[in-house]
Amino acid sequence: MRITAQNRLLLGPGPSTVHPEVLKAMSTPLVGHLDPYFLQVMNQLQNQLRQVFQTENQLTIAMSGTGSAGMETVMVNLLEPGDKIIIGICGVFGERMKDVAERCGAEVIPVYEEWGRAIDPEQIEKTLSSHPGVKAVAVVHAETSTGVWQPLEDIARIAHSHGALFIVDAVTSLGGIPVEVDKLQIDACYSGTQKCIGAPPGLAPVTMNKAAMDKVMHRKTKVQSWYLDLNMISNYWGADRFYHHTAPISMIFGLHEALRLILEEGLEVTFRRHAENGQFLHNELEAMGLELFAAKGYRLPELTAVRLPESVDEGKLRRQLLDEYGIEVGGGLGPLKGKAWRIGLMGYSSTRSNVTLLIQAMKDLLGRG
Amino acid sequence: MRITAQNRLLLGPGPSTVHPEVLKAMSTPLVGHLDPYFLQVMNQLQNQLRQVFQTENQLTIAMSGTGSAGMETVMVNLLEPGDKIIIGICGVFGERMKDVAERCGAEVIPVYEEWGRAIDPEQIEKTLSSHPGVKAVAVVHAETSTGVWQPLEDIARIAHSHGALFIVDAVTSLGGIPVEVDKLQIDACYSGTQKCIGAPPGLAPVTMNKAAMDKVMHRKTKVQSWYLDLNMISNYWGADRFYHHTAPISMIFGLHEALRLILEEGLEVTFRRHAENGQFLHNELEAMGLELFAAKGYRLPELTAVRLPESVDEGKLRRQLLDEYGIEVGGGLGPLKGKAWRIGLMGYSSTRSNVTLLIQAMKDLLGRG
Repeated sequence: MRITAQNRLLLGPGPSTVHPEVLKAMSTPLVGHLDPYFLQVMNQLQNQLRQVFQTENQLTIAMSGTGSAGMETVMVNLLEPGDKIIIGICGVFGERMKDVAERCGAEVIPVYEEWGRAIDPEQIEKTLSSHPGVKAVAVVHAETSTGVWQPLEDIARIAHSHGALFIVDAVTSLGGIPVEVDKLQIDACYSGTQKCIGAPPGLAPVTMNKAAMDKVMHRKTKVQSWYLDLNMISNYWGADRFYHHTAPISMIFGLHEALRLILEEGLEVTFRRHAENGQFLHNELEAMGLELFAAKGYRLPELTAVRLPESVDEGKLRRQLLDEYGIEVGGGLGPLKGKAWRIGLMGYSSTRSNVTLLIQAMKDLLGRG
Repeated sequence: MRITAQNRLLLGPGPSTVHPEVLKAMSTPLVGHLDPYFLQVMNQLQNQLRQVFQTENQLTIAMSGTGSAGMETVMVNLLEPGDKIIIGICGVFGERMKDVAERCGAEVIPVYEEWGRAIDPEQIEKTLSSHPGVKAVAVVHAETSTGVWQPLEDIARIAHSHGALFIVDAVTSLGGIPVEVDKLQIDACYSGTQKCIGAPPGLAPVTMNKAAMDKVMHRKTKVQSWYLDLNMISNYWGADRFYHHTAPISMIFGLHEALRLILEEGLEVTFRRHAENGQFLHNELEAMGLELFAAKGYRLPELTAVRLPESVDEGKLRRQLLDEYGIEVGGGLGPLKGKAWRIGLMGYSSTRSNVTLLIQAMKDLLGRG
């Protein structure tokens, strides 16, 4: 069998539909990972990423793995055995951070919140006060399992006032809603490429400020992952161009083009597009009598978890949507398994036409029952 | 700036030139990582990889990172703190294995050999005899820094006779020379995609037999890397299809097509093509009076380290080759830095025409001095 194009509109939790120009960039003939042309592309990519992360951080790069490798990069580089870290958990990806951090030998102090709600800054404050010596506070900006938009300002301020680093998971937020790394003084932030950035999965944009890099460079122990060790990798992305591992050339080409498209559209326009189409979707779903899972005021425009009527066989309906309309949406995770859909309007997938089509398809399929 | 095609013939230590059909596959519109079509592609990819690895191992998959992530996958899954491992070191990649294994808390017992030579099985035997309780023996099949072809048969037998697992780095061998996983009873083997497989860099094929997977599944400690934990990842590639992380869809498409081309050509024919073009290159280089670095009888056809005349400015000459001919070769590493070139004839790059062109270009450039 040969790989062939399928008729798919990707409106799930990622990957999102990829712009044809990005696909074209993916098929560019390769150059070496130390080729002068490729080094130029890497420099530009760093500048593009800085614009999207809204940062001037020197260490702003794409790690050679998916978003989860970005999460692991931040954890293995910033945490040493015994370090205390507070992690806000109100969905799958907060849980994942806890698992990753524990594997670094860190002492994780979880701050739980009900799924569908955001982490309460006061709980972070209380926990910091009762646990002296916490090294870092981490939260998920856009919880892909619930559709919740986590406000960051207060938690950033609280973490810093206790001398802790502030870590943000921006996998599903970067490129869709503002991720203001410098303004909020986020110390370490990571993302993925296959959500609002609109490139294929396979790279993890990561940025760290000086405070975070100081910690990385003055560790008492070696970073437990050779592959993700920023002490070495920053020498490849930096002026030295010291060979570490062979960069995923084609993926870098694709990400470069995806970022070029975002910056050509303009960050503000991109955010407005995501906001408007997300609002349109929310209105239409509620008009159908369906319940949105995320608490009002905390709803992401790019990822919406919506409860289906109890009588519906979720898996069967989702398969019908794929087979008859070529539309992919995601199923629910955790407490939402079998009960909800997760609808993504990310990057190139975020258009008014796509919302219109999806809503009509849902009305058709739900109306048959 | 937009990504554009450069005039490049990749004859370095990887990436190699990628076949146009593979580039086309890379630009296929995306599907979701749980899409029925994608699961079918994954199943086929596993079968393709089994054929190339010459194994029936159930656990035969592509990890979501480059070859070095493959190395780290094998080490973090098979080693626990305090485990003893013997690593054969006669080049950069043996050294890298040692670094990776030490970061797992393993006690590494290195068996060194001079660069340019292969590890002596007798040294492995002696070391095993004097270090009871060694859990694994690891060697590099094709040392990319020296061009040495490491024979595996004797070391495999010796390792097993001492009850140790046998780990092989096949990053630069898979697809170029036979990697007979089942016949030699290699317990764990990893590779990359951008060498003799002829796909872009970004994935790491990994295979493990039952003995190795038993060790993985009965560890006393959690695998220190969440991203590379085969206990979880095997559930995504297995019948359960349990979501772990978003697979790099486009890279999987590209690898699938590259493997399809290899199997269409036929493994034996592919190996013969690599052997013949490598021999042709070796003959031509020696006819020019240049010295091959790898010991006679241990020379890889797909990667050749060749000393340049002492009077030559290696870096300048390599840049001329790139600028004037569009040909990339690699510089020397370690003791060969500034003194040698590493010439790759891997995958789609391994043709008689490419050797002919390179030799003529070298004669031109060296003749100017």
